[in-house]
Amino acid sequence: MPVDPDATIEITGYQWVPPFGQGRVKDLRVRWALEEIDLPYRERLIGGIFEEKPAEYLADQPFGQVPVYKEHGLTLFESGAILLHIGEQDERLLPRDAARRGRAISWMIAALNSVEPMLQMLVILNVAAADYDWQDAAKDVARPFAEKRLAMVARALGDRDWLDGGFTVGDLMMIDVLRVVPAPMLAACPNLTAYVERGTKRPAFTRALAAQLAAYAKHAPQDA
Amino acid sequence: MPVDPDATIEITGYQWVPPFGQGRVKDLRVRWALEEIDLPYRERLIGGIFEEKPAEYLADQPFGQVPVYKEHGLTLFESGAILLHIGEQDERLLPRDAARRGRAISWMIAALNSVEPMLQMLVILNVAAADYDWQDAAKDVARPFAEKRLAMVARALGDRDWLDGGFTVGDLMMIDVLRVVPAPMLAACPNLTAYVERGTKRPAFTRALAAQLAAYAKHAPQDA
Repeated sequence: MPVDPDATIEITGYQWVPPFGQGRVKDLRVRWALEEIDLPYRERLIGGIFEEKPAEYLADQPFGQVPVYKEHGLTLFESGAILLHIGEQDERLLPRDAARRGRAISWMIAALNSVEPMLQMLVILNVAAADYDWQDAAKDVARPFAEKRLAMVARALGDRDWLDGGFTVGDLMMIDVLRVVPAPMLAACPNLTAYVERGTKRPAFTRALAAQLAAYAKHAPQDA
Repeated sequence: MPVDPDATIEITGYQWVPPFGQGRVKDLRVRWALEEIDLPYRERLIGGIFEEKPAEYLADQPFGQVPVYKEHGLTLFESGAILLHIGEQDERLLPRDAARRGRAISWMIAALNSVEPMLQMLVILNVAAADYDWQDAAKDVARPFAEKRLAMVARALGDRDWLDGGFTVGDLMMIDVLRVVPAPMLAACPNLTAYVERGTKRPAFTRALAAQLAAYAKHAPQDA
């Protein structure tokens, strides 16, 4: 298991988050990538998701989020930037061939900028508009934007196992984005349901999820 | 001017978009980056933004959007993936030093995944919820998410000209994301207003914008 207190690579995560966030915090993507290529990392667990972050942390992560990735003199924030850096080190995540490498990076960015934002809009309306009688109407307006993007990923995937031949950081990011889609919504694209299952059955994903949950279990508040 | 019909690099754009989209279509980011390092490119202008795209185009760009970037055997989609590739070729866009390079890429991804989605949510509510009496209430719920991210970028920028010393693809992407923020909203962070002005005054930006608008002028419908 790559979690190793003596490792050179350090990633930040939260000590604990409420149950709805467990397994969804974005250090999971980074843990998953490191597990895929057996690269050991140590954890630096910071205070809760809603706590004000100290200036020192904001200097590394301007939005006060996790993860931050540190390695020698290198400090990275944003899971996409971190996956790209990890991918560069191993062709199991990012092919050496220029054309395949380009498509893998394109898919990784597509997950972050063309798919996740449409899903996130629904999550925000779910949480922040819960007290308003127009919540359902607003979600009905937002949902087709997400559904359309899902259908486009599904068409591109077709009947293949991964988006572009072998598994890459593009799949890793896309699957981590898609796996939080409510099952009934994802079910409109059966090949995406199968794709997410295929990805989350990978031993590296299972280990990454276990590592994130283990940290939360250790720091669970007494009254939770 | 880098637009050159004989260039090796090809990018796609639209023949024409309605006035509200002019200057906002994402091939602008790519034109801007190429102008910054004087890399010539040729345009391939495709049918309108709302037209169904042929299967051949969807094979290159699964979401049917622009731009697609082609160069020898390389095909890239997503402006972030393209900027990264262009940046790799010139330290005026992406520093060689590993630490500075890492921060530039982190900022570029932050623009795409931590800032643009919150602004896009407001744009979608503006357009798609225009006929509903809850539109303003929904925008009031969504707006603080965007404002909070803008404030965080503003704090990180401080009184510097660019996010991390010299101008990088991180600034290019962030400025292209911020420049469509309504002026009154951006005005809450005066250093961001100045930052956007600084970026859009760069000669490379001016040339890129002129090139996009020139294509639309040439293909404007007779009745428009």
